[in-house]
Amino acid sequence: MMAGTQTHETDPQDLDLPTYDDVCVAHERIAPWIHRTPVLTCQTFDDMSGAQLLFKCENFQKAGAFKVRGATNAVFSLDDETAANGVATHSSGNHALSLSRAAQCRGIRCQVVMPHSAPKAKMEAVRGYGGEITTCEPSLSDRERTLEGIVEQTGAHFVHPYNDPRVIAGQGTCARELLEQVGELDALVAPIGGGGMISGSALTCSTIAPRTKIYAAEPAQADDAYRSFHAGHIIPDDAPDTIADGLRVSLRPYTWHFVSHYVTDVLLASEDEIIDAMRLVWKRMKIIIEPSCAVPLAVILKNKELFAGQRVGVILTGGNVDLDNLPWMPRR
Amino acid sequence: MMAGTQTHETDPQDLDLPTYDDVCVAHERIAPWIHRTPVLTCQTFDDMSGAQLLFKCENFQKAGAFKVRGATNAVFSLDDETAANGVATHSSGNHALSLSRAAQCRGIRCQVVMPHSAPKAKMEAVRGYGGEITTCEPSLSDRERTLEGIVEQTGAHFVHPYNDPRVIAGQGTCARELLEQVGELDALVAPIGGGGMISGSALTCSTIAPRTKIYAAEPAQADDAYRSFHAGHIIPDDAPDTIADGLRVSLRPYTWHFVSHYVTDVLLASEDEIIDAMRLVWKRMKIIIEPSCAVPLAVILKNKELFAGQRVGVILTGGNVDLDNLPWMPRR
Repeated sequence: MMAGTQTHETDPQDLDLPTYDDVCVAHERIAPWIHRTPVLTCQTFDDMSGAQLLFKCENFQKAGAFKVRGATNAVFSLDDETAANGVATHSSGNHALSLSRAAQCRGIRCQVVMPHSAPKAKMEAVRGYGGEITTCEPSLSDRERTLEGIVEQTGAHFVHPYNDPRVIAGQGTCARELLEQVGELDALVAPIGGGGMISGSALTCSTIAPRTKIYAAEPAQADDAYRSFHAGHIIPDDAPDTIADGLRVSLRPYTWHFVSHYVTDVLLASEDEIIDAMRLVWKRMKIIIEPSCAVPLAVILKNKELFAGQRVGVILTGGNVDLDNLPWMPRR
Repeated sequence: MMAGTQTHETDPQDLDLPTYDDVCVAHERIAPWIHRTPVLTCQTFDDMSGAQLLFKCENFQKAGAFKVRGATNAVFSLDDETAANGVATHSSGNHALSLSRAAQCRGIRCQVVMPHSAPKAKMEAVRGYGGEITTCEPSLSDRERTLEGIVEQTGAHFVHPYNDPRVIAGQGTCARELLEQVGELDALVAPIGGGGMISGSALTCSTIAPRTKIYAAEPAQADDAYRSFHAGHIIPDDAPDTIADGLRVSLRPYTWHFVSHYVTDVLLASEDEIIDAMRLVWKRMKIIIEPSCAVPLAVILKNKELFAGQRVGVILTGGNVDLDNLPWMPRR
């Protein structure tokens, strides 16, 4: 099912799927460490879309992204003995920040494998949360080899960015909060990369709001979820090129389970549509969102007929951008 | 008292000062047309300042700035006969946007005199709210002469950006909301340009929260309020040069009354301090604020001893920036 070079695979029968009870436990567990983020509305976007859009602002979340939910749930669900050896992951993005912060909150080590080409600002942010960085070559195989070495040497516990039931249950707390805050929704739209947020949202909605349709929003230039969804099996994409840097990863067995069972459709947006939507949110809502986070609004404005007249939840997933290198600035 | 070239002056004895009752009437009057903006906090800034900072987010306000409060109060307090001739003002900034929007809400004309050098984006925004623009030379005298011509010709009612009791009462609704939202404050810090927001804040706090100290935050490169405060009379500055484009105007009799009676101190920030504070807010709070709006945080971080251990309200006044021309971008 998966490309042979990828490790840590799980046979579908062996999946230890999270349940909505796990979401509820996660919510209690992480509540002291995260923000209950606000929900904002914007008349301009309601007028443009013909829908009522309710934006769940995870860009205001601790560490600047929803990923802190899943990472914190994973770290605080470890028993003391396991936790004593610390945690580890490979990521150049928000999961690295989030796991470092969660480990700092628990007072344990966090080791992060990052490609030496990762932005300096990201590395500084990881170090700011006490994360220890080991650099590697910018290839998946070298990342995983380097991580395995660290795990072997230190006994650190590996927390995958999304192919992990604890992480998915943690991300599911976001949709739970949104439903508490705004009531019933006709649809919920979130970006899809590896599928952690979509999986958590699907887990929550399928249990407490089964009428709510789940739409995954994906960059057309990283459309592996779209292709997988239509093929009926995972089609990984090794090196997608999109400005939505949080969405360059592919589905894995845990997230594929939720995508294949609960997602109504995967909708695509071009690079220009993503940048336009990001800029529109900055201009009209006066909030900072990162490119990955703009994909849902881009697909809503492109598929108005799907959402017209409906109450639509939109997960604004994160706000970590390089202010010196914005998509509309001349390329340096 | 004022430079002879300035018109529309009022003898101090003749001031028809607004009262807190006017603030309460304004609050009822404008409620259907404005947002009750949220209050945000930020652990990073609390840690940096040693104070508890409560940010009142008028950058999320309709038209992107607090000025919509005063403009809407002025427009909706007109009797039908006066309103029928429309309103007019001269402004190249947020007051022009706000008055245009208020007039649009009431269904009357709004004529705005803007220097032909005003940013195209601002002109488009005024037109987007139905405002009619007459361009003039970029000098105060030509602005006022052009405005007088329009008023004479059309009978439009002039609404000054700040030297107007209805505008000051409208701005006073912001501090009232903040106090309702967060309870008692030791201090409140807002930017000062012409002094409309500071005057409204002083009017409200001196009545319902007299223990709350009012600090005015001003760019060092446009320090006419600072110099006036220490001299005991208005010292206008005709052409201050600061990145805080909303704060290039000088005090007038109505706002001088409140500044001279109720402000504890005027604190200054350099251009670099303003830009650093603006960027920090973008980076840490993930919200868009304009340069003028960053001055309060800049002076708080510079004068920590004044605020340490206190509950401090901070008015984030506006979020209208040119995304293609940010202060940290290379000059074009």
